[in-house]
Amino acid sequence: MMIIRQLLPILMLAGTFTSGRAQETDDASRIRSLFNEALTSYEAYHNLEWLCKNTAGRICGRPQAAAAVEFTRQVMEKMDLDSVWLQPVMVKSWDRGEPEIARIVSQKFGSADVPSCALGWAVGTGRDGLSGTVVEVKDQDSWKKMTRKEVEGKIVFFNQPMRQTQTATFSAYGEAGWQRTNGPSEAARLGAAGVVIRSLSIEIDDYPHTGITRYAADVKKIPAIAISTRASETLSSWLKQDPTLNFYFRTTCLEGPEVPSHNVIGEIRGTEFPDQIITVGGHLDAWDISEGAHDDGGGCIQSIEMLRLFQKTGVKPRHTIRAVMFMDEEVAQRGGQAYALEASKKGEKHIAALESDRGVFRPKSMGVGGNAEQMKKLAQWQPLFDPYDIHLVSGGGGVDISPLKNYYPGILFMGIIPDDERYFRVHHATSDTFEQVDRREMQMGSAAIASLIYLFDKYGL
Amino acid sequence: MMIIRQLLPILMLAGTFTSGRAQETDDASRIRSLFNEALTSYEAYHNLEWLCKNTAGRICGRPQAAAAVEFTRQVMEKMDLDSVWLQPVMVKSWDRGEPEIARIVSQKFGSADVPSCALGWAVGTGRDGLSGTVVEVKDQDSWKKMTRKEVEGKIVFFNQPMRQTQTATFSAYGEAGWQRTNGPSEAARLGAAGVVIRSLSIEIDDYPHTGITRYAADVKKIPAIAISTRASETLSSWLKQDPTLNFYFRTTCLEGPEVPSHNVIGEIRGTEFPDQIITVGGHLDAWDISEGAHDDGGGCIQSIEMLRLFQKTGVKPRHTIRAVMFMDEEVAQRGGQAYALEASKKGEKHIAALESDRGVFRPKSMGVGGNAEQMKKLAQWQPLFDPYDIHLVSGGGGVDISPLKNYYPGILFMGIIPDDERYFRVHHATSDTFEQVDRREMQMGSAAIASLIYLFDKYGL
Repeated sequence: MMIIRQLLPILMLAGTFTSGRAQETDDASRIRSLFNEALTSYEAYHNLEWLCKNTAGRICGRPQAAAAVEFTRQVMEKMDLDSVWLQPVMVKSWDRGEPEIARIVSQKFGSADVPSCALGWAVGTGRDGLSGTVVEVKDQDSWKKMTRKEVEGKIVFFNQPMRQTQTATFSAYGEAGWQRTNGPSEAARLGAAGVVIRSLSIEIDDYPHTGITRYAADVKKIPAIAISTRASETLSSWLKQDPTLNFYFRTTCLEGPEVPSHNVIGEIRGTEFPDQIITVGGHLDAWDISEGAHDDGGGCIQSIEMLRLFQKTGVKPRHTIRAVMFMDEEVAQRGGQAYALEASKKGEKHIAALESDRGVFRPKSMGVGGNAEQMKKLAQWQPLFDPYDIHLVSGGGGVDISPLKNYYPGILFMGIIPDDERYFRVHHATSDTFEQVDRREMQMGSAAIASLIYLFDKYGL
Repeated sequence: MMIIRQLLPILMLAGTFTSGRAQETDDASRIRSLFNEALTSYEAYHNLEWLCKNTAGRICGRPQAAAAVEFTRQVMEKMDLDSVWLQPVMVKSWDRGEPEIARIVSQKFGSADVPSCALGWAVGTGRDGLSGTVVEVKDQDSWKKMTRKEVEGKIVFFNQPMRQTQTATFSAYGEAGWQRTNGPSEAARLGAAGVVIRSLSIEIDDYPHTGITRYAADVKKIPAIAISTRASETLSSWLKQDPTLNFYFRTTCLEGPEVPSHNVIGEIRGTEFPDQIITVGGHLDAWDISEGAHDDGGGCIQSIEMLRLFQKTGVKPRHTIRAVMFMDEEVAQRGGQAYALEASKKGEKHIAALESDRGVFRPKSMGVGGNAEQMKKLAQWQPLFDPYDIHLVSGGGGVDISPLKNYYPGILFMGIIPDDERYFRVHHATSDTFEQVDRREMQMGSAAIASLIYLFDKYGL
């Protein structure tokens, strides 16, 4: 290690903030307490470990999801909150079936089995598997120009990489995501027999990454798998020299019936405005091949931890603060929809919501989706976050809280933006394990969430 | 994952920079190329893997250090640099001996073996081990008040934790570091029989962390070990109820003779000012119980990678740019001293130096230890780093490059400041493995170093 004088970033020197009530010593010391408690406690981290190791593969509809519901309910039940309850949600179910087989069969190079996994909610090939020649697609533009003649009866290999040079990795994911969500439907429309996609991973390695695919209503559902990025490189390079090679894959996945599940909700009732609700949540479901540590067990645990931090440091919120474990983010967002619908039916008043679903890495920024005036007010809170090297920025939202907007147009969305360098290495893969989570990083996030909610609850925006 | 509108941090909006020559499209695209090449290449990462897995435990004086010298020499030799050479350094040697034994022996609680490791360059207990009652020290102030009567013949247990609430973790390390470096000498001065320290780790876990201890010349060298933080918590809590419990430990470590070793240097000669040298380095030695991935194999590999990035993207530096693998940072900094001394003897002209030795996590800032005018000029480069979310700050230096200051008072020191949340979990422990390094994070650092050196080489400061 080296000794370095680390002064304030030059940029920060350019920013001056007039003193305001939010900068009172009281707030700084409150926030200090939230961070101190978060950084010295192991409870949340141990809860995440339990969730990862005992409810791995908790995609909606599976028994593991029920275990995750019951575990988080029990965790919150022990916390002496004002209320803890389960909110019923009907969810889809699907079973991956037997381990997938994916094989490149080339007269020139030989035969190679490659790491693969069926896309979520894909149909299976049947027990005999599916075999065919391959047509490779390297980007969306060239795909749009393809004709039925080029595709019919073939296996379409969507091989547009997530751009490693895109430093905003969520954008890289967004750019390449069409292959998984829409690729199978679009290929079916042109008569393809099956689809193989390059895993949506930012790294070249041997992990296949799953995730939902959405079949359009008007096309035949065709089988679809992801293969690892390294296998995709191999397949692509073999195809160059052996364009008529065969690809074989076998999946026995099958959609099941809808089954009952739940959102899990815990709340601290507000002292002054108990009818005004602030929601903080993550999603409890996680892909069936993963422990769902970063996606999104960590986000759930951070939400619960926010409530514990308030309790432990003596914060008595003026508004009602809820931690919500949403069920079924990964498939059909039934949990988020049910939460918003029931809120509306009950006549609840929702004033703000924050979702943590970008991994529990070191927080870089906290986002608020406010108007110009709100952002100006927010900027006055920046000095309170400077000691933790966290920026207050414009932004916020998430798929589980977004249905609230339908019923509460004025609701303020917030968000936590952790460092995103590592997320898409583990996202939706077996590598998303508890061991990939650093306690301090996750807890910096818990404290950052608690701090922003503390200030919003106290001063509004 | 959630979709979020991530706009510019509010703080950044406050900073405006007048356009200057450094903001020419050419520089932006050059820097883009450096990042693109770094983010899409696996060469540096594979080299780090080789170094970690084949030269683990390469503390100075051990054969593994010689292997690391030869490996990095070969890596640079293959790169078609202008020169690659070894610079002789005599280093101390030391052998840990047999696996350490550390045991709490309590009449009340029973006997418990705890994870331990001898401090670097400590003397051993001898084959029979050392046993004694324990005096616990909780902070430096109370230690300063202790008397010979309280300490004599006892085992001093230095148990001041690294403050988990200190968000600047390097400062937490600095605050607690006296226990390891000076504790044994100070305890010996009061007649202690031996020393046990709480591992300098930011986490509560089962890894013992080693590191150098420095015996003062005027005291008896007494044996000294570190035990894991969790074991320290146990020992402390048992002592409360059983103050006369015994602590037993056995170490057979032994200092050896001085042995020959080397710094490894590779350079690209400058096109305009070949006699003016810019040094970028890390240290090649790593503690004998670790793979030395973050400390500091990664820093060495980043230095080599900077040269490769220049070559690959066609940067022809005006000044001579060197990558230096310093030997013996961890013990006596002989490599850094030899490098500076030889430079001076040869009449070389050194204008700047950068050291990467804070782990190869995601870079947050690049530091320059310049005067006000230089910092103003530096600020003009900030927009070039904005796309990568890297701040240019005041700071820089490091123990291996600092001897250069003795001969080149005007030299400009620079530094890379990665995120430091995870560093002191793995620092000097068996947990500092290749698997703890994320390729993208390390490579963002390689590109950031190359970018800063590129700009400094082109424009000066």
